[in-house]
Amino acid sequence: MLLNTINDPADLRRLSRHQLKPLAEELRGFLLDSVSKTGGHLSSNLGTVELTIALHYVFNTPEDRVVWDVGHQTYPHKILTGRRERMDTLRQQEGISGFPRRIESQYDTFGTAHSSTSISAALGMALAARTQGSDRHAIAVIGDGAMTAGMAFEALNNAGVHEDVKLLVILNDNDMSISPPVGALNRYLARLMSGKFYARARDVGKSVLPGPVLELAKRLEEHAKGMVVPATMFEEFGFNYIGPIDGHDLDSLVPTLQNLKHLKGPQFLHVVTKKGQGYKLAEADPVLYHGPGKFNPSEGIKPSAGGKLTYTKVFGDWLCDMAAADDKLVGITPAMREGSGMVDFEKKFPNRYYDVGIAEQHAVTFAAGMACEGMKPVVAIYSTFLQRAYDQLIHDVALQNLDVTFALDRAGLVGADGATHAGNYDLAFLRCIPNMVVMAASDENECRKMLSTAYQYPGPASVRYPRGAGIGAAVDQTLETLPLGRGEIRRQGKNVAILAFGSLLAPSLGAGDKLNATVANMRFIKPLDVELVKQLAASHDALVTVEEGCIMGGAGAAVSEALAAAGINKPILHLGLPDRFIDHGDAAQLLAQCGLDANGIADSIAQRFGKDQPKLVVNNG
Amino acid sequence: MLLNTINDPADLRRLSRHQLKPLAEELRGFLLDSVSKTGGHLSSNLGTVELTIALHYVFNTPEDRVVWDVGHQTYPHKILTGRRERMDTLRQQEGISGFPRRIESQYDTFGTAHSSTSISAALGMALAARTQGSDRHAIAVIGDGAMTAGMAFEALNNAGVHEDVKLLVILNDNDMSISPPVGALNRYLARLMSGKFYARARDVGKSVLPGPVLELAKRLEEHAKGMVVPATMFEEFGFNYIGPIDGHDLDSLVPTLQNLKHLKGPQFLHVVTKKGQGYKLAEADPVLYHGPGKFNPSEGIKPSAGGKLTYTKVFGDWLCDMAAADDKLVGITPAMREGSGMVDFEKKFPNRYYDVGIAEQHAVTFAAGMACEGMKPVVAIYSTFLQRAYDQLIHDVALQNLDVTFALDRAGLVGADGATHAGNYDLAFLRCIPNMVVMAASDENECRKMLSTAYQYPGPASVRYPRGAGIGAAVDQTLETLPLGRGEIRRQGKNVAILAFGSLLAPSLGAGDKLNATVANMRFIKPLDVELVKQLAASHDALVTVEEGCIMGGAGAAVSEALAAAGINKPILHLGLPDRFIDHGDAAQLLAQCGLDANGIADSIAQRFGKDQPKLVVNNG
Repeated sequence: MLLNTINDPADLRRLSRHQLKPLAEELRGFLLDSVSKTGGHLSSNLGTVELTIALHYVFNTPEDRVVWDVGHQTYPHKILTGRRERMDTLRQQEGISGFPRRIESQYDTFGTAHSSTSISAALGMALAARTQGSDRHAIAVIGDGAMTAGMAFEALNNAGVHEDVKLLVILNDNDMSISPPVGALNRYLARLMSGKFYARARDVGKSVLPGPVLELAKRLEEHAKGMVVPATMFEEFGFNYIGPIDGHDLDSLVPTLQNLKHLKGPQFLHVVTKKGQGYKLAEADPVLYHGPGKFNPSEGIKPSAGGKLTYTKVFGDWLCDMAAADDKLVGITPAMREGSGMVDFEKKFPNRYYDVGIAEQHAVTFAAGMACEGMKPVVAIYSTFLQRAYDQLIHDVALQNLDVTFALDRAGLVGADGATHAGNYDLAFLRCIPNMVVMAASDENECRKMLSTAYQYPGPASVRYPRGAGIGAAVDQTLETLPLGRGEIRRQGKNVAILAFGSLLAPSLGAGDKLNATVANMRFIKPLDVELVKQLAASHDALVTVEEGCIMGGAGAAVSEALAAAGINKPILHLGLPDRFIDHGDAAQLLAQCGLDANGIADSIAQRFGKDQPKLVVNNG
Repeated sequence: MLLNTINDPADLRRLSRHQLKPLAEELRGFLLDSVSKTGGHLSSNLGTVELTIALHYVFNTPEDRVVWDVGHQTYPHKILTGRRERMDTLRQQEGISGFPRRIESQYDTFGTAHSSTSISAALGMALAARTQGSDRHAIAVIGDGAMTAGMAFEALNNAGVHEDVKLLVILNDNDMSISPPVGALNRYLARLMSGKFYARARDVGKSVLPGPVLELAKRLEEHAKGMVVPATMFEEFGFNYIGPIDGHDLDSLVPTLQNLKHLKGPQFLHVVTKKGQGYKLAEADPVLYHGPGKFNPSEGIKPSAGGKLTYTKVFGDWLCDMAAADDKLVGITPAMREGSGMVDFEKKFPNRYYDVGIAEQHAVTFAAGMACEGMKPVVAIYSTFLQRAYDQLIHDVALQNLDVTFALDRAGLVGADGATHAGNYDLAFLRCIPNMVVMAASDENECRKMLSTAYQYPGPASVRYPRGAGIGAAVDQTLETLPLGRGEIRRQGKNVAILAFGSLLAPSLGAGDKLNATVANMRFIKPLDVELVKQLAASHDALVTVEEGCIMGGAGAAVSEALAAAGINKPILHLGLPDRFIDHGDAAQLLAQCGLDANGIADSIAQRFGKDQPKLVVNNG
């Protein structure tokens, strides 16, 4: 067994070239076995086995820096860089992350997870190396899906002018982001791969190419469909373009990378891989095997028995129903058809479905343009990815008070994906923006009503809901709305009133039972139900706010602001997520650790106000 | 006089072709005269006179939609669309805006100001038209600077696949954003313009071009340097590319646009213009004439007598001094060399100056990459533009706790630029992010000390400061730092303590004098000086927070959160910017209207707590 001897890339570099192929086979087998036991990303990692081996074999990592875009394809990298034996802890609390993390390994040069950051980061590293007089290389490995995001182009545009920089961009072209790719760039890459440009390339090859690359091109000719295309888009950006080459052929990859090491200036290597490579089931359905749970590799993923209704499904069903009722509805996703629950919608309403690519900024302003013409766009986006379109939301949607609905999936803690994907900040960063309506769903049925409410509200409105299944509430099939800016009392108790926002209503009710406290389902972060706040303040000794979001600037702060604006002085306790990034782990466990389960909420209240009889806070400073 | 007869584009369309040139001359004269009296953007507007005339002449506005990217080049458009007589109110309170606004005119189809939104918006409009079965056109006019932003590419990528859409993108190529342009794309455009590709174009022209365009190409041959270039980058994106043509030649523009009207699918017209066209002084120095104040057109802009030191200059001086002291410093700007005060820094430290183009997302992640390698990046960015890099700040900088300094110019109200440029939200959207240090400068000297503090802090830190001049504080030339998370008491009074954050310290001190209130200069929004808050709460009857930022989620909310966390119950009043977008006008006047001058602050306090003796708020809800 070769793999067991590799505890470090230095071990790998001691192997002979002909040992790399059997190593790749072992690594692929290990990977499949490992991911089938832990769950995690599979298709993308099966696709990068050879590329990972070749990079660590040819380059002097960690002195040479490799930045993996998105980072969910780094399991082979983790296995080869000393973390093989920790793969069974993948994405679990205290275990290794599903993404590269600087604090986890010196080989993880840059933490990634959100798409399309790698070229920017690698360029920063490369120019730092230049400034420091170092010869080290900086390498960005980026997928064709990630390449559609504007920030990748911003980085290409900036990099191309630095003629003396040791930067290598590797386009890992697998014709696939999570969803099938869309957009003109992808069509362009397909044309590059089809070899259509190749004939022209041949003619001018000699004058354009540096010697070693020309040599290389000749040698590679057998291995790849097309090659060394001049005047590609990437060359227009100032890069030396090589490719496409077969990213599963170590006899192509290794010599190509060895040659590239000696070239100056920004280099662009176009590598073609297949998601799921080497595991037939994943090759056949890379989307299904993108991020599976545990499964038996010999049997493959079994259709699940159904299980609880997810919020994603609630959204997807609502979207279809509302689209059927209103032909002005259009659905927009930045490359998250599956994740956002839009598969059915696309099938039923293909002409009103817009997958704009990994392009959150464009998605939101595109929606704004649609709204100007009387269409009613629904932008389905994860809370964490809305961070990417913040200015567009402010400047293009909210400022013009346009009628755009934002459906924010994965709000709050997301579990195994960890801090990079946390949807912890949306309440804080949305409610400070004028004109916004901001809602948080406490159960599946309310989620549907809130989506209808947001949709019917003639301005910008957002609904957040957590990842995964809800509490199991039955969902009315109507398109009924909720009264704007109105909460409701769900439990009448005394002394303490708990003001719950969204997903933590259920544990708040549990805490209310323990303490005989009043519990309100506030529903709206903005406009806040100020009358309800006043009423609760008038009839209770203390208020407690609860939210699955950062305390700083969140819904609890909104309540404090409302009290201050009304000149009401009332003891208040803010419960929510603490001011630190929270690592991956089981979401329910993590919430409990933050004191946000029923016991934790009750304990915090009891600790502050007393268990049976709230002690009036008399501390006047 | 032709211009006086044009009160609407319909009037324009009644003119004969040969009247357009004299109209352009009149319009240019009117524009120069008008801007010289009001101040405003000049160079860019002189550059778009003919293009504006041609667009309204050829297209059926407002039924056909024109979206002007950035929008500071829309004065000719405003003059021709019924606002000629209101140009003397430009950028003044209650006057017309310096940017297009939907509420101002039906001809302003989309509000712009931040760069690079136009293609996304126009594509949304065009696809809405398709859905609605309308034949109307959607036209985006975008500069070559704006084209470097990623979101423009996201939009091109998305647009290029819609073969049946009535979308025209006009690249207004003037080789100039505000600062001279940078990046590979600009070099590419220069090559296109050089006609280098033209010879090749000729050969394949017949096979590639639709009939009308080929005809057009022949007719345009006399007018333009190069033309109808096949296989440009824009064609790779699925657009039909025409150009470059002379954007000041109405005999090129009008027939080209007339022909383009009849073509199907996404069209890309490359127009070459000159900033400042027709006014020699502006042609010679378009940067100086980019956004002048009032001046005498026959004399030109006179060197100013110096005037007060601006915060921008304080930053620029500090940057040079710190760079001299520490060779790890690198300065990064997203195309705002002049605006951010980096002209001297570039001259003195050209190898540590990085203008990355209009590319805020890339700028921040590029800085993160630099920081990984031990460099110490300073990102100079307007508060409003940091909104564009919010995810990069969270995901790439703060999450990895990287040592990046953010220098946020134009924080708070910006005056004549209005709501689109308002820096009102940064305190709210930054302080909710873990690991961030957030400061607000109350005067020039403190600004310098805060910059040094942020720089020496080994993690992400921001300093915000307002547009324009400060209070006239003398600036120490040292690189002294401030103690982290510590405020100071600036005036000892009684009963009420005013906690001032940043630029409103001066009026807070004024209010303190009126009321004999204590005034603290809090300096840090995060980490908040909780000890000082507790101390002030303990020794006063009431607290008042004051900030030049949105109340919602801002510094005042931070104080309330700290009080709640400490179990302190104390009457508090939050003063800051209200929850609405604030239009253009004089910044000091606008602040006063928001009750944020000394009188307004004192009045608000007196109204809440009583003038002489704060009445203890006994309202317990």
